[in-house]
Amino acid sequence: MLVPKGYRFAATGAGFKYKDRDDVGAVVSDEPAAAAGVFTTNKFQAAPVLVAKDLLEANSEMRAVMINSGQANACTGDEGRVNCRVTLEMAAEAFGLPQDVILPASTGVIGDHLKMDKWKSAMPALTESLGEATALDMAKAIMTTDAFPKVAWAHLEGCDKEVRVFGMAKGAGMICPNMATMLGVVLTDAQVDPETWRKVLKDAVDGSFNRITIDGDTSTNDTVFGLANGASGVVAEGRVLKALSEAVMEVCRSLSYMIVQDAEGGTKVVRIEVGGAANDAQAEVAARTVGHSPLVKTAMYGCDPNWGRIAAALGRCGAQFDPDHVVIAIGGTVIFRGGRPVNIDIDSLLAPTLKRQDIVIDISLGEGDGSYVLLASDLTHEYVTINADYRT
Amino acid sequence: MLVPKGYRFAATGAGFKYKDRDDVGAVVSDEPAAAAGVFTTNKFQAAPVLVAKDLLEANSEMRAVMINSGQANACTGDEGRVNCRVTLEMAAEAFGLPQDVILPASTGVIGDHLKMDKWKSAMPALTESLGEATALDMAKAIMTTDAFPKVAWAHLEGCDKEVRVFGMAKGAGMICPNMATMLGVVLTDAQVDPETWRKVLKDAVDGSFNRITIDGDTSTNDTVFGLANGASGVVAEGRVLKALSEAVMEVCRSLSYMIVQDAEGGTKVVRIEVGGAANDAQAEVAARTVGHSPLVKTAMYGCDPNWGRIAAALGRCGAQFDPDHVVIAIGGTVIFRGGRPVNIDIDSLLAPTLKRQDIVIDISLGEGDGSYVLLASDLTHEYVTINADYRT
Repeated sequence: MLVPKGYRFAATGAGFKYKDRDDVGAVVSDEPAAAAGVFTTNKFQAAPVLVAKDLLEANSEMRAVMINSGQANACTGDEGRVNCRVTLEMAAEAFGLPQDVILPASTGVIGDHLKMDKWKSAMPALTESLGEATALDMAKAIMTTDAFPKVAWAHLEGCDKEVRVFGMAKGAGMICPNMATMLGVVLTDAQVDPETWRKVLKDAVDGSFNRITIDGDTSTNDTVFGLANGASGVVAEGRVLKALSEAVMEVCRSLSYMIVQDAEGGTKVVRIEVGGAANDAQAEVAARTVGHSPLVKTAMYGCDPNWGRIAAALGRCGAQFDPDHVVIAIGGTVIFRGGRPVNIDIDSLLAPTLKRQDIVIDISLGEGDGSYVLLASDLTHEYVTINADYRT
Repeated sequence: MLVPKGYRFAATGAGFKYKDRDDVGAVVSDEPAAAAGVFTTNKFQAAPVLVAKDLLEANSEMRAVMINSGQANACTGDEGRVNCRVTLEMAAEAFGLPQDVILPASTGVIGDHLKMDKWKSAMPALTESLGEATALDMAKAIMTTDAFPKVAWAHLEGCDKEVRVFGMAKGAGMICPNMATMLGVVLTDAQVDPETWRKVLKDAVDGSFNRITIDGDTSTNDTVFGLANGASGVVAEGRVLKALSEAVMEVCRSLSYMIVQDAEGGTKVVRIEVGGAANDAQAEVAARTVGHSPLVKTAMYGCDPNWGRIAAALGRCGAQFDPDHVVIAIGGTVIFRGGRPVNIDIDSLLAPTLKRQDIVIDISLGEGDGSYVLLASDLTHEYVTINADYRT
């Protein structure tokens, strides 16, 4: 595990919801770091999202990120924002940091207020763990329904000194009251000016976390933070900046894949590659319509090379195309072309392909140069069980 | 069961897919009837859809509708259209009708060509049943995965002579290769000019079949036909036309309800009423986002009054609103208001409401006068079983 220089981690169990595990974690940079945040576009935004946005608007550099699981602090009104601010003040004091340099994120039960007494009790242990806990400990502390912690790392190619990028994430669909938000933190020891760093992070999120779907729902808390503290001594400009952008994208894509792999009840990671669309936006709408179709998702679960459901989803997606020019392939084998299924025994031929966890659906609309790639989970009995029966 | 005058029904078993049941049916009007059709907007359109559109473009009056189950004749190219025409010619000859007055529809397995030998063998029995079979027999013959036949009827209020409207439908989600199309036939013995009749049917479909959702997918074969043969001797104009429009709407809404009630694996009929939107289109997008959300649908299955999932779906739907002005009620009980859940024991209070088959979710966006009502099914283990495991 390759962690960038100049960061220390903390994690402890505050007992917000879970027993016998950590549920609050933090990362502190030794020096002020260029800070970036990408947030949910949902109109209902949780208190920590609103607070983090305010902090990032006021300051381009931050020292830390603190995240808790078990309580989302969403749909909690003014009191929720005040509580969020108070937890940040507690942490700043405990860590010996100035005010307004810690970014907050929360995930868990929505609607309930933060348990402030538990926050207060947890602060000494959290502070004590700072520098002792690993990045993996923090990644575990922010889990909700996740089956495994999600971390990824990379180093920049072709730099004189070593420059590292590290990321962690959580997310496994959206359960509410366990509204299992997608959260991510990306750290680097490159030195980047804050405005450039915000663009690097936004582009990486657009190319990764925004191209996955579990159930099509977005949460009130979705957040990705990025810190760049310059501890490597390498300034990211020109060629190095390009390498940094690629490394951040690579880390975010790895984390995105793990989120789909860990989808609630999911058994498949379906890569939907749409090409030949009139433009990229139309390719996206086609990929999303296929990736969200319950019929396509159940077919993937059932290892069924169901070209009819894919074609029907395309037919209603609104993208321009001539049905006779559409080509659909699964695992590289063309199964639909010229408005008709191909005349082969698709079931037998594709059985081994569909047994795998990773399935590629390749769609060409025969219209232009637009393309898009989406990672989607399948829809399973276990998904229904988790989301319908979780109270029992 | 109130069937309009001047129609005879036929039904027989051709053995396209099912054993020991009828799978082709027809209704024949004694006289030429004003004819209307509303079709799927899916870009992949089945052969019978293309043929029916051509027939209705050429002629405003028809004599019959013939529908088969077991074979959809979709994604079958030019050969599929030729086969469809040949079955219509066979039926015209068998029934003693002129060419080009029978409207076709098909539902069932897609991609395979019609079994023309079975059509030919079935014609004598189909003809023999004409006038012997009931409308219910035809409604049964067009079923695929439907658990029950769907018929509804009404008579016009305030006419001197009796004027009747009768409808039948099938549909229970979209399974492919059993692509279970939504099909409907509406019959009346009112006399209506064809152009007006087409508008009456289109408005009724917009207000009924277009306001239900099982899994968000549309099929290649979705079709609703309407015939108005004038056998009652009553001309539908002015007040009578208004009564006819209302009766057709009522019949179509009853059939729509039954389709959701019979959704694949469905246990609930969720009525999503959105009000207070900036306009009707925004109310529709809000209702559809909530009605398609797998998390809301699994919550309904689990009898869980999950305001968080409803709020999250609204938050991402794209409609304008202030989160603090949204009010969400289930079964008439407000559970979310002012950006917060209400401070009552929702679980206990709503338990009896959520145990019922019919659940009303009432959403007010607090923005304007726009409204929309959508009927949605829930998402269940059985849905996944039907759609993932049907091959086993």
